[in-house]
Amino acid sequence: ATDVPNIKLLWVDGSDLTNYFENGEIDRLYLNFSDPWPKKRHEKRRLTYKSFLDTFKRILPDHGEIHFKTDNRGLFEYSLVSFSQYGMKLNGVWLDLHASDFEDNVMTEYEQKFANKGQVIYRVEAAFKSKINNEKGHAVFFDFQGNSLNNEVVNDISSNKMVLRTLLKTIHEYKNSSSITRSEER
Amino acid sequence: ATDVPNIKLLWVDGSDLTNYFENGEIDRLYLNFSDPWPKKRHEKRRLTYKSFLDTFKRILPDHGEIHFKTDNRGLFEYSLVSFSQYGMKLNGVWLDLHASDFEDNVMTEYEQKFANKGQVIYRVEAAFKSKINNEKGHAVFFDFQGNSLNNEVVNDISSNKMVLRTLLKTIHEYKNSSSITRSEER
Repeated sequence: ATDVPNIKLLWVDGSDLTNYFENGEIDRLYLNFSDPWPKKRHEKRRLTYKSFLDTFKRILPDHGEIHFKTDNRGLFEYSLVSFSQYGMKLNGVWLDLHASDFEDNVMTEYEQKFANKGQVIYRVEAAFKSKINNEKGHAVFFDFQGNSLNNEVVNDISSNKMVLRTLLKTIHEYKNSSSITRSEER
Repeated sequence: ATDVPNIKLLWVDGSDLTNYFENGEIDRLYLNFSDPWPKKRHEKRRLTYKSFLDTFKRILPDHGEIHFKTDNRGLFEYSLVSFSQYGMKLNGVWLDLHASDFEDNVMTEYEQKFANKGQVIYRVEAAFKSKINNEKGHAVFFDFQGNSLNNEVVNDISSNKMVLRTLLKTIHEYKNSSSITRSEER
């Protein structure tokens, strides 16, 4: 890699990445042929274990993606489930990359070695959910008599923008309504 | 199947299942070696296409599961992505079922045929999200001056139970507070 000017190599523990990168600094994360750690008691060392996903999510942007390749069936099965359980969305899955029509593959040395042996290469593109929690939910607002005021889909309930906007509107309307007055105004 | 008393066979269109089953009537859905419909223009005919998932979700209980087996790589790749994009969680993935330690496999005739040819059998267990939308969100409640009252994780925001409970509590506290009174009480 001596002829590539814009490259830095870090040989550090994957769980320490937040010491080297700001939140959202990494555009995309590629995991290539990570150590499978096949023993159940070593699950926490697999780079697709949830504690690593916590780290990756932090240094990636919103909806950041992991592109993961491996020749190891057990690690791939594990990783698909781990991504899914973490709430990530699978955007693409390849169960025999070299037999597929995927064109932009950059072959690693390790991959070449396994491809030559006729071994299947697995690949997945998985995306994190928004960091600001973009899960949709419903919020219902009630007036002082317990009557439902409105029921809206809140797109970004964790950032609370819509909840806040609706509640402030409700508050404003109450302030200006005759049925409720603030005690200072009596 | 003549010696199995508790079996009914339906030979109907998969999209018509809601005509035969009540909501939540089916305990679990097994898709075994569904037609792969490999051409992109036939995507809508695949039983793991989103319109079929809509139907399956309805006749299954909350968090209902699909257990899906196939020998078809393309259909399996497609289905993993389709389940994930639909918001389903993958609870288990097998990329070579017969080479795995999965013990409860019930071999179909079709599967036996393919296994004899040495072909890989794929399997996945995927679960729907709760029908009542169990996504977690945060709800913040504000008082009449716009001050944040509390910020709680709402486990089941769509069923609104916690939101309702908190708002009713807030309403109750307001009714009994000195700073706000209902106009009828003036």
